[in-house]
Amino acid sequence: MSPASPATGPVHEALAGLPLVDHHCHGVVTADPDAERFESLITEGAAWPDSGISPFDTPVGVAIRRHCAPVLDLPRHAPAAEYLARRVELGWHEVNRRFVTAAGTGVFCVDTGYAPDRITTPTELAAAAGDAVAYEVVRLESVAEGLAAEGVEPGEYATAFRAAVRDTVERRGAVAVKSVAAYRTGFDLDPNRPSDADVTAAAARWLGPGGTDGRRTDGSGTGGRGTDGRGTGGRAPERRPRLDDPVLVRHLLWTAADLGLPLQLHVGFGDSDIRMHQVDPTRLTDWLHRTSGTVPVLLLHCWPYQRQAAYLAAVFEQVYLDVGLTLHHVGPARARAVLEEALEITPFRKLLHSSDAYGAAEFFHLGALAFRRGLADLLQSRVDSDELSLPDALRIATWTGRDNAYRVYGLPRDGLA
Amino acid sequence: MSPASPATGPVHEALAGLPLVDHHCHGVVTADPDAERFESLITEGAAWPDSGISPFDTPVGVAIRRHCAPVLDLPRHAPAAEYLARRVELGWHEVNRRFVTAAGTGVFCVDTGYAPDRITTPTELAAAAGDAVAYEVVRLESVAEGLAAEGVEPGEYATAFRAAVRDTVERRGAVAVKSVAAYRTGFDLDPNRPSDADVTAAAARWLGPGGTDGRRTDGSGTGGRGTDGRGTGGRAPERRPRLDDPVLVRHLLWTAADLGLPLQLHVGFGDSDIRMHQVDPTRLTDWLHRTSGTVPVLLLHCWPYQRQAAYLAAVFEQVYLDVGLTLHHVGPARARAVLEEALEITPFRKLLHSSDAYGAAEFFHLGALAFRRGLADLLQSRVDSDELSLPDALRIATWTGRDNAYRVYGLPRDGLA
Amino acid sequence: MSPASPATGPVHEALAGLPLVDHHCHGVVTADPDAERFESLITEGAAWPDSGISPFDTPVGVAIRRHCAPVLDLPRHAPAAEYLARRVELGWHEVNRRFVTAAGTGVFCVDTGYAPDRITTPTELAAAAGDAVAYEVVRLESVAEGLAAEGVEPGEYATAFRAAVRDTVERRGAVAVKSVAAYRTGFDLDPNRPSDADVTAAAARWLGPGGTDGRRTDGSGTGGRGTDGRGTGGRAPERRPRLDDPVLVRHLLWTAADLGLPLQLHVGFGDSDIRMHQVDPTRLTDWLHRTSGTVPVLLLHCWPYQRQAAYLAAVFEQVYLDVGLTLHHVGPARARAVLEEALEITPFRKLLHSSDAYGAAEFFHLGALAFRRGLADLLQSRVDSDELSLPDALRIATWTGRDNAYRVYGLPRDGLA
Repeated sequence: MSPASPATGPVHEALAGLPLVDHHCHGVVTADPDAERFESLITEGAAWPDSGISPFDTPVGVAIRRHCAPVLDLPRHAPAAEYLARRVELGWHEVNRRFVTAAGTGVFCVDTGYAPDRITTPTELAAAAGDAVAYEVVRLESVAEGLAAEGVEPGEYATAFRAAVRDTVERRGAVAVKSVAAYRTGFDLDPNRPSDADVTAAAARWLGPGGTDGRRTDGSGTGGRGTDGRGTGGRAPERRPRLDDPVLVRHLLWTAADLGLPLQLHVGFGDSDIRMHQVDPTRLTDWLHRTSGTVPVLLLHCWPYQRQAAYLAAVFEQVYLDVGLTLHHVGPARARAVLEEALEITPFRKLLHSSDAYGAAEFFHLGALAFRRGLADLLQSRVDSDELSLPDALRIATWTGRDNAYRVYGLPRDGLA
Repeated sequence: MSPASPATGPVHEALAGLPLVDHHCHGVVTADPDAERFESLITEGAAWPDSGISPFDTPVGVAIRRHCAPVLDLPRHAPAAEYLARRVELGWHEVNRRFVTAAGTGVFCVDTGYAPDRITTPTELAAAAGDAVAYEVVRLESVAEGLAAEGVEPGEYATAFRAAVRDTVERRGAVAVKSVAAYRTGFDLDPNRPSDADVTAAAARWLGPGGTDGRRTDGSGTGGRGTDGRGTGGRAPERRPRLDDPVLVRHLLWTAADLGLPLQLHVGFGDSDIRMHQVDPTRLTDWLHRTSGTVPVLLLHCWPYQRQAAYLAAVFEQVYLDVGLTLHHVGPARARAVLEEALEITPFRKLLHSSDAYGAAEFFHLGALAFRRGLADLLQSRVDSDELSLPDALRIATWTGRDNAYRVYGLPRDGLA
Repeated sequence: MSPASPATGPVHEALAGLPLVDHHCHGVVTADPDAERFESLITEGAAWPDSGISPFDTPVGVAIRRHCAPVLDLPRHAPAAEYLARRVELGWHEVNRRFVTAAGTGVFCVDTGYAPDRITTPTELAAAAGDAVAYEVVRLESVAEGLAAEGVEPGEYATAFRAAVRDTVERRGAVAVKSVAAYRTGFDLDPNRPSDADVTAAAARWLGPGGTDGRRTDGSGTGGRGTDGRGTGGRAPERRPRLDDPVLVRHLLWTAADLGLPLQLHVGFGDSDIRMHQVDPTRLTDWLHRTSGTVPVLLLHCWPYQRQAAYLAAVFEQVYLDVGLTLHHVGPARARAVLEEALEITPFRKLLHSSDAYGAAEFFHLGALAFRRGLADLLQSRVDSDELSLPDALRIATWTGRDNAYRVYGLPRDGLA
């Protein structure tokens, strides 16, 4: 809340030196985006080229000019045009390297199920960061849609989907799965496991002739619900059938509960395909009761429902949360305020760091910066007022920035205490 | 958040000297209200004369005694009784002149569709401010209800309503239209354009014998939903049929989308006729998708949904917002905090200023003061911490306080750069 | 927001010396809880003994080690194990006496309808505090469930329930009644008074063979909805039929409206049996319109709906609120921030103090401390910035901490001005 407070002190130093685990992110573009394309990458809206409104004139745009320009050797607050020119001058490879390195991230968990652009693979991303490690996260809707594109009999859909998920996870050594149910149906779902007959009937509707077209023409003017929080401006619509049947989305979530791997769930903030009032995560309460004891559930982004997510993390053993995506969009000036709300009642072993960076490498740097500074401001001020001991503050910083992720995902802890 | 911070610096100076555009307000009473009437004007509740609870004992009451008393030559924090006596002593004409002038507003956009009291016309309001300009905003429900009072055949309602709106807009040179759908049905509406047959059938129900009485006796003990955020204490109930049929409200919104003028929508905070849980503006998402590319949509007030409104402004090109009404009710002590949330992800060309003042001229002064100080505190603190450059801060201040409104409403920019 | 601000000044002194009215609380355990039991008492989740996640590693756990350890003669921030050992060493009687006395509470209003543990009676609680007074609050669901356990004919349920409530209130000299409708059905209820026939039919369903078992096996894995915000870990499930029929819950609320005593309503924060999205208190708007003029309605806890509760308190004469339970769970470091939101538009005669302490005597101390410090920080900072006069600040502090409760509950004011 007080961005003027000096960003110094032992907690800031500890977080500055901590290699983060970014438990949810994507690849970055491997091309030099032109102005309009870059602008579309830095907004959850879209570039509105005829509107006279630039995505640079937003909190995240201001934060890029302030915090990313210096990484490209420009002065702080450099004009957008200069920024874009310098970006092209350096070239995408060097730009990506600089930002991903600047993030100081040791481990990336990469959702590979969303790639309308040519982007880095997890291996390429880790390489850009120097000596980092990357793991994959399998997007469940992409697996289901791939299956539908290949062709499957309705009666075999459930079995085939389960097998395809297991196969994909094994093949890629994935550490988690992810669902964008928030985009497809929202969370106002029947919490019960669907019967085999229901799944078969739903699959028949979805896979049948015309079955996936019903909602396509209904709703948004973009590619429909399920683009997962990325501006759709300038990109081609998806070609594959879109999984948005409520029974199949329920089935997908129950399949995840059976799988044994942590489940990442998109919550809240994203692009215009979200129906925000339907993605309050407390709508999942009955489902969380029924799947208690199965898999960890990680609520991603959460804004403006960070308090609701915190409540779930406080009362359900299996629930965790982050405020990724949110932190770089609100920028370092507001990161602490959002973290204050996210942490009001959250157990300190339940908050994780993610950037949710996609496309623009800037977001790796900005997400890490906003997280480190926001959390350090919060913790240090509590230490300064003696509400928290310094050892506790340091422990919470390390847990949140790194160790909670190691713990939930069971990551190998080479060399870690 | 830190009201103790000195209200000085270049951003404060710039905003103090900027003639604001108040893009949504009403007239002020042209009479000397007695104590109970004045108290009913300064609350969204009502005067509760037998309760022992005075509307002066609220954040806005405290702010009036602090910031308005000196305008009437009284000491800061003058007691309520002295304040009311001095108000009568000066007389409504002088009181109105002082407060409206103190606001430093250059342009008023005046919703003329709500006037249970004898209040100033837009021309009288502008005259009270000295050299200001006033434009009208046409309230769509009032047009529809006027039509119903005059009598119209159900089959002709759609055409007659469209014509009446166009006629009213032209006759008054209005710059925008406004809907209080929030009060009538909430936003949980079918997003699709209703068919002609549906509109005719709904009009028949509404216009038929007894057709408008159905919900009158159902619901609040006051005049029903649609009083638009003014305390109903002490006022006579509406006489005209109240437009609250879901099909006709949808039709009204679609008629606005066809019209070409900016559409102001009441959102959130208002009197007890609001069902707050039904006016989360993200419930409009599907309608916003369908009407994308038609008219600008300006979300008014928004609290406690300022973050939801900010989300819509970030992802829909046509959406704008303000936190009018809210800012003077929370008072200067909390104005910055509300603006911080409203601006978390909002593009800087999407926030506007309004007072939503009605009745009590104090609210013109208080709304402008809370806006100027809250926004200046927010921006200056970001400049001080080097999160924002000073030129950017000044640009954002001018956009928000004036230029965004000029742009959206296409106001003539006599003498403006 | 600024926990580093010195907790000094005239408002802090006034609140430190004010004997509070704790208008909603419970008894404390009369035994020495072991580590797991104590951990389950300090969380709204449960102790998760196999998870490696301790309830001490939360905001409230940190606050206990900071603010409660010194009351037990330990250093600030003492480790959890030392804290627990010292607690046993002193014994529950002395521990309870110290914390309840430290709270500086003059009057307790004790909800006696929830007691899965052996806990203090109101008289024992008041005795632990020295010269305090305790009044009872009758939990309506417990009365109904007691009636069902004893046996009642469906056709006599309504009359018998009304008589049982009146009898219980009189017998105990209760000052208020309370409902946990939030846990049983949420607030999305038909706002109308149910007919006698509807109540009889619902009672027949509920009281009939198997009638109360329907939802038992449906929903949470714990004892079902209705445990009222206490961790269910380690406790035996309820034996009595659980009142969760929507018609009977409505009937219960209407019976309360007829009774003449203030009605306390659980809102928001609680254990995992809450469906948070269904307990937004603005869902009660239509019911509040219909019962206007009957009894005061006190919204308890409210987080994360404190702004929604504030809105209702601003526009309905009969509505009051507190942020009890919330304040000690977020801890002194965030108490001011929550109070700032709760007071944004709330009339100053509408906010009350409660601890909602149950089981752990620490919460009496911590709730009072967080309330006093948070409110004093808020008010003093407004005095410092001249947004509020000091006499007004002192008046608001006394109202909120004590006099509003005296007024609403009609408590005898022996010796009070």
